[in-house]
Amino acid sequence: MTDKMCFPSLHFCPPDWLLLAEGEVVMPLVSIEERMNWVLSLGSANIEEKNNGQGGPFAAAVFDVEDHRLIAAGVNLVMPLGCSVLHAEIVALMRAQHQLGVHRLDLIEGRRFELVSSTEPCAMCLGAIPWAGISQLVCGARDEDARAIGFDEGDKPERWSQKLQQRGITVHKDICRAEAVQLLRDYQVGQGQLY
Amino acid sequence: MTDKMCFPSLHFCPPDWLLLAEGEVVMPLVSIEERMNWVLSLGSANIEEKNNGQGGPFAAAVFDVEDHRLIAAGVNLVMPLGCSVLHAEIVALMRAQHQLGVHRLDLIEGRRFELVSSTEPCAMCLGAIPWAGISQLVCGARDEDARAIGFDEGDKPERWSQKLQQRGITVHKDICRAEAVQLLRDYQVGQGQLY
Repeated sequence: MTDKMCFPSLHFCPPDWLLLAEGEVVMPLVSIEERMNWVLSLGSANIEEKNNGQGGPFAAAVFDVEDHRLIAAGVNLVMPLGCSVLHAEIVALMRAQHQLGVHRLDLIEGRRFELVSSTEPCAMCLGAIPWAGISQLVCGARDEDARAIGFDEGDKPERWSQKLQQRGITVHKDICRAEAVQLLRDYQVGQGQLY
Repeated sequence: MTDKMCFPSLHFCPPDWLLLAEGEVVMPLVSIEERMNWVLSLGSANIEEKNNGQGGPFAAAVFDVEDHRLIAAGVNLVMPLGCSVLHAEIVALMRAQHQLGVHRLDLIEGRRFELVSSTEPCAMCLGAIPWAGISQLVCGARDEDARAIGFDEGDKPERWSQKLQQRGITVHKDICRAEAVQLLRDYQVGQGQLY
């Protein structure tokens, strides 16, 4: 059930199917490609479910870097929840922090966390990554792949992956890029709304 | 009452004192300096209240550009709500969208909205502004003023204010900068935590 937020408190629930998908995943997903493919399957589900025609082709998840176990996943909930901030990466980061009870994941001693994102993060999500305490970023489709179907990725700093690495955040790009691009194209074919 | 969010749904309430301050403001705040000074007063209150020593010296608010009425305000709730995403600007944008029932403020025909921020937005909040549908950004302290007391503003694109303006978003900088810098210094003197 995707509740609307209530005023003045803000309240949002991830969709039921996402919680079910988290429960059903066979852990751990040892290879980086397994983790990406699972995240891409969430993006596909988000298009299929469409939250009444409002789902976007973006998904993300936070994993433990050492044991590859899932902490929390996110899909783009901008339109179903009426909030421009709720990109897949932001939803995954907020849920992971909430589940682990910290406002920065790198405050947990002896553990490191990875964000797997179906497409390279937009300017907002990129800016959110260092604050969230993520140690490793894994990307599927490129920025230009999202732009090619009409999405705006925002104004990102030049050489953004180098800048993350200077902050001690490892970046892996082009993981299952072909499959990630296919997800974007599937959305385009379905004439999904761009936002 | 600042509730913790509950899993799996995410739930957060702005602090009571912020809602009271919104109710007490004498509207409209016609000059840009009046609006900034009101926002700075929220930053001061956030330090004083400190949410058990956890409040930060940052505040923001969304106003209607035409009639200068307040839509919603935000303060930094990263530590009290355990979520790195909840910068003052993000809280104000989420609350404004929720109150007006849209996922982009620029979808509301015939109205335009301004974000007033006590300090120039960090990389994440800067990236959030175009997605939120803001038409005008008003900043108090500069990026370098926040860095001077030890806050990290993230990796922002070069000439970020020009880039916003290319997107049709007007930017006003250095509004009540001296007072805004004083707010940052008050926090530093109080040995507030940097995050």
